[in-house]
Amino acid sequence: MDVLAYMQTLGREARAASRAMARADTRAKNLALMTIAAAIRRDASALLKANAEDLAAAREAGLEAAMLDRLTLTEKSVASMAEGLEQIASLPDPIGEMGEFKFRPSGIQVGKMRVPLGVIGIIYEARPNVTVDAAGLCLKSGNATILRGGSEAIRCNRALAALVQEGLRAAGLPHTAVQVVDTTDRAAVGALITMPEFVDVIVPRGGKGLIERISREARVPVIKHLDGNCHVYVDDEADAAKALRIVENAKTQRYGTCNTAESLLVARSVAAAQLPAIGKMLAEKGVEMRGCEEALSILRGAGVSADKLKSATEQDWSEEYLAPIIAVKVVSGLDEAIEHINTYSSQHTEAIITENYSHAMRFLREVDSASVMVNASTRFADGFEFGLGAEIGISTDKIHARGPVGLEGLTSQKWVVLGHGEVRS
Amino acid sequence: MDVLAYMQTLGREARAASRAMARADTRAKNLALMTIAAAIRRDASALLKANAEDLAAAREAGLEAAMLDRLTLTEKSVASMAEGLEQIASLPDPIGEMGEFKFRPSGIQVGKMRVPLGVIGIIYEARPNVTVDAAGLCLKSGNATILRGGSEAIRCNRALAALVQEGLRAAGLPHTAVQVVDTTDRAAVGALITMPEFVDVIVPRGGKGLIERISREARVPVIKHLDGNCHVYVDDEADAAKALRIVENAKTQRYGTCNTAESLLVARSVAAAQLPAIGKMLAEKGVEMRGCEEALSILRGAGVSADKLKSATEQDWSEEYLAPIIAVKVVSGLDEAIEHINTYSSQHTEAIITENYSHAMRFLREVDSASVMVNASTRFADGFEFGLGAEIGISTDKIHARGPVGLEGLTSQKWVVLGHGEVRS
Repeated sequence: MDVLAYMQTLGREARAASRAMARADTRAKNLALMTIAAAIRRDASALLKANAEDLAAAREAGLEAAMLDRLTLTEKSVASMAEGLEQIASLPDPIGEMGEFKFRPSGIQVGKMRVPLGVIGIIYEARPNVTVDAAGLCLKSGNATILRGGSEAIRCNRALAALVQEGLRAAGLPHTAVQVVDTTDRAAVGALITMPEFVDVIVPRGGKGLIERISREARVPVIKHLDGNCHVYVDDEADAAKALRIVENAKTQRYGTCNTAESLLVARSVAAAQLPAIGKMLAEKGVEMRGCEEALSILRGAGVSADKLKSATEQDWSEEYLAPIIAVKVVSGLDEAIEHINTYSSQHTEAIITENYSHAMRFLREVDSASVMVNASTRFADGFEFGLGAEIGISTDKIHARGPVGLEGLTSQKWVVLGHGEVRS
Repeated sequence: MDVLAYMQTLGREARAASRAMARADTRAKNLALMTIAAAIRRDASALLKANAEDLAAAREAGLEAAMLDRLTLTEKSVASMAEGLEQIASLPDPIGEMGEFKFRPSGIQVGKMRVPLGVIGIIYEARPNVTVDAAGLCLKSGNATILRGGSEAIRCNRALAALVQEGLRAAGLPHTAVQVVDTTDRAAVGALITMPEFVDVIVPRGGKGLIERISREARVPVIKHLDGNCHVYVDDEADAAKALRIVENAKTQRYGTCNTAESLLVARSVAAAQLPAIGKMLAEKGVEMRGCEEALSILRGAGVSADKLKSATEQDWSEEYLAPIIAVKVVSGLDEAIEHINTYSSQHTEAIITENYSHAMRFLREVDSASVMVNASTRFADGFEFGLGAEIGISTDKIHARGPVGLEGLTSQKWVVLGHGEVRS
């Protein structure tokens, strides 16, 4: 198989389909989404069978347990794929939205219209639900999509692609608006990210290695998410009960998510009063603390078990543990906290716990991260929690989309000029 | 000189300065802008002297006339640099703007804040006024800037940099917020576009070759402008007077600008009636028409001088002439016009001339270009004409900023969460 020629055919078909998708009306797009959801429910057992074959092959190939876990579909996860599509159908259609029309001295009226990006390439691993989520979000936002899932999920992804294309056809939309790359050849990825004539943007979802490689080699823009080294800063005017509750939630509600807190900063003036209770809570939950000397001395003095305490190294300030470990540092106050965050953070999400208005305002303004919070858990940094309805990912870039990326992040705005025969003088 | 080490020092200083710029208040930024403007007026003769030295060296080096023309400063152009800065000072400050705060079911309130991008690298040729324009726009939008002008303008750019830094100091802002690369070594460009740790975005301004090379080699996002192959489509319900006036303005007001029309499409049903007057007007202005056979036959029949008529080749449909030449094609109607534009256009700016409401709406929605217009000249696609106050360039990309890029294009939005102790359940 000539992979490059195959990918260019997919690209050409996607580009052609994107034009039809850009002018598709809301009714047709929602009909496609609802038809796909119904087809997924109808064919749940066939999907589970395809998934079982993927799983058997993956086990035989010796894939690790975490990967097998992500690959596994259940009746419940199949149902929630369908629910996800119904939810996307219920969201307002962003495409064609117009606004901000103002008359200019020349007589023309200038405004903006929201339009699709065109063709979006999604590159991901294992999880078959990404196939449906990504297809649904791209479809609703009027884009064509080329999906390149992991080779370990190819049977299930093929089955899902057939259902998605059934839905597109039923709604009178081109079935090539969503295409699944049907080869496990790794050269397909290299081709997908270097076809600016056919692909407008790449959204990689997966491990840091994958994303770094794609960003390095892509010849088209990439909406990407790298680390989530999120901080909670307990300010010198923090409410102790809020601090304890928020640190607990931000660190321990789930260890493996990108919006989990990985670093705790505590203002010196409240460290002796607040750190002991926080340290005991973390130790009880089985969280290891990697602290600066000052933090360790307070935690030891408070009787926190020595096996949960370690000295932090410089590397710990930058670490995304995705595990029951947290870096802990006592800082002189707000200035040092902001400086530390802007130096070591991955610019994902940071929270200040404070009752001081000026400190809250300065933290919001000066911390250079995608989401900044006052008296709330970093775990809220999420498309659903922020009200986007669904998300295709969380961007740690500043260009285009920042933070949780929903339908709007898959669109752009063009300028619209309404004239009456005006010419420029 | 170790160019890489030098560029990294500039980068490190710019990154540090960008933090101070991000929190700088409007008053300080405007004071800096007004002080620079006053210093430029005060030192006008010194600037003209530095420019004369640049010009002498450029003449000696045998630079072509067009380049010398772009390099030349006059008393008037020095004054308009100062006026440009005063105008930027008078624009509203976009940084810190907050809005869209909505309560979520969890109890948190979620909104957005506009923030600077960080450090912007500008790479340009000849024109010394870009130094001042770009510095002013980046300063007002709270960014730090590294400016890499052409080697032929180095003396003048040095003198301008000193005045910019004088203004920054007078306003209590770090003088390293605007730095001019003070070496003509070409390796400086290579370094500037491959330092993602210090530079957030690159804005190249110059010829297509420069911009393509930078886009290809950059390891940071690029806000770029490539071709301007703009179309005017005279619809089958076009008002003949508007069509004639707009084609004249769009093609002949200035030949060398990116928003000049390079292609004219005419609906078959009005071609015999409207093309003769348009062709005669163009021929009188000295514009050569490269037409399809049908267009040529109508133009010949109307008595347009044969030396102004040529057969169009496939290449003509994609050409940005920047000269008194226009491609002319008769199309069957709106569908073919949209198809032709979406195939050959550089996605800059396109206009339809029509009195038909449905045709106008379809053209606006379906033409995939940065600016789409009804009954107005493509020459309006410009930051000043659109009301942005000033522009750093016109983007032909879809990601981040599209079309004329003003202050807002140099910013991003972060998410702000106002909580009351909420945690995620």
